[in-house]
Amino acid sequence: MRILITNDDGVYAPGLAALYKAMQKEHQVVIAAPQTEQSAVGHAITLSDPIRVRPLGPPEGYAGWAVSGTPADCVKLALSQLLDYTPDIVISGINKGSNTGFNLLYSGTVSAASEAALQGVPSIAISLDSHDPKADFSFAGRVACLIAAKLAQWNLPPTVPLNVNVPALPESEIRGFRFTSQSQTCFKERFIPRTDPRGNTYYWQAGETANDISTDRTDQSTVQAGYVSLTPVRLDLTHHKLLDSLRKFELSL
Amino acid sequence: MRILITNDDGVYAPGLAALYKAMQKEHQVVIAAPQTEQSAVGHAITLSDPIRVRPLGPPEGYAGWAVSGTPADCVKLALSQLLDYTPDIVISGINKGSNTGFNLLYSGTVSAASEAALQGVPSIAISLDSHDPKADFSFAGRVACLIAAKLAQWNLPPTVPLNVNVPALPESEIRGFRFTSQSQTCFKERFIPRTDPRGNTYYWQAGETANDISTDRTDQSTVQAGYVSLTPVRLDLTHHKLLDSLRKFELSL
Repeated sequence: MRILITNDDGVYAPGLAALYKAMQKEHQVVIAAPQTEQSAVGHAITLSDPIRVRPLGPPEGYAGWAVSGTPADCVKLALSQLLDYTPDIVISGINKGSNTGFNLLYSGTVSAASEAALQGVPSIAISLDSHDPKADFSFAGRVACLIAAKLAQWNLPPTVPLNVNVPALPESEIRGFRFTSQSQTCFKERFIPRTDPRGNTYYWQAGETANDISTDRTDQSTVQAGYVSLTPVRLDLTHHKLLDSLRKFELSL
Repeated sequence: MRILITNDDGVYAPGLAALYKAMQKEHQVVIAAPQTEQSAVGHAITLSDPIRVRPLGPPEGYAGWAVSGTPADCVKLALSQLLDYTPDIVISGINKGSNTGFNLLYSGTVSAASEAALQGVPSIAISLDSHDPKADFSFAGRVACLIAAKLAQWNLPPTVPLNVNVPALPESEIRGFRFTSQSQTCFKERFIPRTDPRGNTYYWQAGETANDISTDRTDQSTVQAGYVSLTPVRLDLTHHKLLDSLRKFELSL
């Protein structure tokens, strides 16, 4: 297969290197990834600033481009401008840290996969549940390779990205694979006020993702239980159930 | 009611002024809006940079704060740090240009309302379907006021933002209000390559939102037909229907 790889941790991230290494054994792989870290940029796109592109080469060891934009910019630019073919699949990752629950809304990793889906290209977002700088991405790389081969077999429409989260466990302790729903897990932010050398207050946005105590098969609880979680993502944000009940109301100014 | 207003066009946008003016006639209103334009930043939040806050006052004519972050940052910071009470409702807008179809994913306006919903505060995103610099936001302001009063009556859960789009027509030509679903409408980007004074290539991301030809009651077709469109938004991105069919597959490495 011809595979486009992107991420939100930037072109020098170890998770990207592991994904490239795992995929290039069997596939033709090209990278279009952000020049700098773009974590938590969500589905942002760059309209007010110019976007610059730097070809990757021997220093990095990759075929492809570093892009001065967001993950969604990378996918748009690669599909419409940089590549002269449509890849068979777009894979975004391997993200440092899981992308579960409502954090999907903030995730540049997931948004890159969503952007591919909007353009009709099958896509996977893959994340490792670890922020350890020495985290081992090699098992997650093999998982990406396995799932890329399965997408067609599962009849997953190209408009539906698959969001994959891998526990940070030795392979022998991984309990298997589970299809899951998005949990209610959420980033709980804290703002830390500080004072700069000129006496002005500024804030750091800190925080962490709360654990999920649900017993349902959700992304977060499944990863916590030692399984690889696979969630099909829906990009129609309509709350159809509520829409039906709202339509009984009349409204006029 | 006590109302928090934000937007993505920034604190000096005319749509924000119109919304503030319309709401403050009947309510206690405070603003927490981005210092600079943040269009198309989606649900980005600022983790890698400090966030600065500037109190608004007589020069601007507003009560509240300008924030050096994204719309989602503004809502998070206001609810957890700047306000000593929880507002009854958060209203985001009035955006310059409609927010329909898959553009909801890119929209800072809608993401600010979504962020409020994640925090359990009822919310509305409101947009005027015009990019005209002289656009008149006054009717859309009255629509915001009307809908804010209706939310409780409709039993809309606080976790469900309402995405409102107003046609840019004289009030006499507005045909009414419709509850709608999200259309398949999408921003179709074009990348325009240019050369800088040093001979380096860069790209502008340009493009437009395609018209919607569907006959369903979607956000885009409804606004095009001259109605105010109201879409309840769902923040669980699980594709539940596909999830059920995927669960029949077994997977192992």
